[in-house]
Amino acid sequence: MKTILVTLPVEERHKKILEAAGEDCRFHYCAMQEATKELIAEADVILGCVPAGNIQASERLGLLQLYSAGADPYIAPGVLHENTVLCNATGCYGKAVGEHAFAMVLTLQKNLHRYRDAQRRHCWTDFGQVCSLADCTVLIVGLGDIGLHFARLCKAMGAHTVGVKRRPGPCPEGVDELVLSAELDSVLPQADVVASFLPGTGDTRALYTAERFAAMKKTAVFVNCGRGSAVESRVLCDALKSGQIAAAGIDVCEIEPLPEESPLWELENLLLTPHISGNFHLQDVLEKNVRLAAENLAAFLAGKELKNVVDFETGYKK
Amino acid sequence: MKTILVTLPVEERHKKILEAAGEDCRFHYCAMQEATKELIAEADVILGCVPAGNIQASERLGLLQLYSAGADPYIAPGVLHENTVLCNATGCYGKAVGEHAFAMVLTLQKNLHRYRDAQRRHCWTDFGQVCSLADCTVLIVGLGDIGLHFARLCKAMGAHTVGVKRRPGPCPEGVDELVLSAELDSVLPQADVVASFLPGTGDTRALYTAERFAAMKKTAVFVNCGRGSAVESRVLCDALKSGQIAAAGIDVCEIEPLPEESPLWELENLLLTPHISGNFHLQDVLEKNVRLAAENLAAFLAGKELKNVVDFETGYKK
Repeated sequence: MKTILVTLPVEERHKKILEAAGEDCRFHYCAMQEATKELIAEADVILGCVPAGNIQASERLGLLQLYSAGADPYIAPGVLHENTVLCNATGCYGKAVGEHAFAMVLTLQKNLHRYRDAQRRHCWTDFGQVCSLADCTVLIVGLGDIGLHFARLCKAMGAHTVGVKRRPGPCPEGVDELVLSAELDSVLPQADVVASFLPGTGDTRALYTAERFAAMKKTAVFVNCGRGSAVESRVLCDALKSGQIAAAGIDVCEIEPLPEESPLWELENLLLTPHISGNFHLQDVLEKNVRLAAENLAAFLAGKELKNVVDFETGYKK
Repeated sequence: MKTILVTLPVEERHKKILEAAGEDCRFHYCAMQEATKELIAEADVILGCVPAGNIQASERLGLLQLYSAGADPYIAPGVLHENTVLCNATGCYGKAVGEHAFAMVLTLQKNLHRYRDAQRRHCWTDFGQVCSLADCTVLIVGLGDIGLHFARLCKAMGAHTVGVKRRPGPCPEGVDELVLSAELDSVLPQADVVASFLPGTGDTRALYTAERFAAMKKTAVFVNCGRGSAVESRVLCDALKSGQIAAAGIDVCEIEPLPEESPLWELENLLLTPHISGNFHLQDVLEKNVRLAAENLAAFLAGKELKNVVDFETGYKK
């Protein structure tokens, strides 16, 4: 009898869905932080994230189905046994993170973060010119499920959307123009909004260099709802302080939580959220994760092909 | 020779457009605050807003073409001579104010105002559940140009839109359901978002009573980008403090600027902007106002029908 460890924050109705997908299996439910080395060692399948250090390359573990899109902690050498299949949750976060990034862009473009500060000071102050996303060129770097959802929202509001992708392919719905990652530098100067949804891999580390911020419009808004490793805090801070870009909204930082001494906290033109856009705060995220976990559990038990298998080379799904 | 007083904040290229519409006229340009009784007394046409008290029912004034959608100060008895035609700027603010209200809704739904406060306190804190506008029923009270623009933005994001209108008519694009003002109370309990774009008239004064806030969902977000007179500050404050509604975003207040002693400043679940959504902060607003002023000036001089003539009974355009 297979043992299934579930760390998804499920409700009773979700348990029924998972248990129907894994008939004859033993299910153990616990919170992510409660997934000890002992519990993990007994698991044939894990549905959810667990502390990477507790996996200890367990040979018994056949499938680790994450509830995160990013798989960075699990692809490090020695974390998983070579026979363990790692699947991520690509496809579950498009709506939640895409909408969060979209809301950040509008907040910044309409100066609502500054009006909030003024309200706190009891100040009835006018911050002047705003712009309309409808008149903007929006660059979307990382065209997975999240980037695509964000692109569709921007386009629905009237923006011109330019998607940046690693590999050539057809131009997806919601994207007006498609360029390859290698062409990033040529399109940065045209963008009014640069939105980044890149996973944390070797290729994306510190991608947004000082030179790249300098190449952006002074009026540009930069948003990062991918991984914090794509931008060094120091570089972002300089770009915002020097006025190389107008404003930024970030849900992720180089080091999380953001260290107390970081100058980012105090920047007026930075809007910061504490890596919450992709949590289970939107009900939709949990529903999609449960559906994916049930599908992949059933497929795994039946020896069929799995969805969202992670490529250890790239950190993306294959 | 007719004298045209212009208080629109025009650029040189706009002057050319206006002067082409009023050939053989004498143009005088000044800021709104600089429109003295003397200047107004010499004007046959005013293009722009002026201090209402300075008009003194001038008999010479044939046309007052406002750059505001609200005409409240000018329809009061004794302000205008009976021969003066008053036109408002309906149609010029849809994009600017609609987008501002839309940004406010998203900011509140995604807790960005609270994350901003937390950032200011250097706090990496999670505020939990959010919702998606795509899953919401949005009530739009006041279906002029602004309400319609807002409705279209909400619908493009996936919301179900219910429009509230004074008079029966066909259901406009962007609106899923149309109800009459008299039915407001029956639809309030269904709305996840209640957005108000009403002008300041006798009919709309204190429309949002304590009973109406009590009838709304506890999770509802209320937005007012119409006129502040539609909600008494005390009533709004109570509704927000008692949790009758979840949050509010207001660009307008009962008294403006909001008095220093108002408790509204300190409410965490209120987002306040200082009546700026309809200023000339979005370039689009000025372009549309200049076009309208030029058209109405030409029509007035030619004795033709004018656009946006205000009905003194209702304060709306006829």
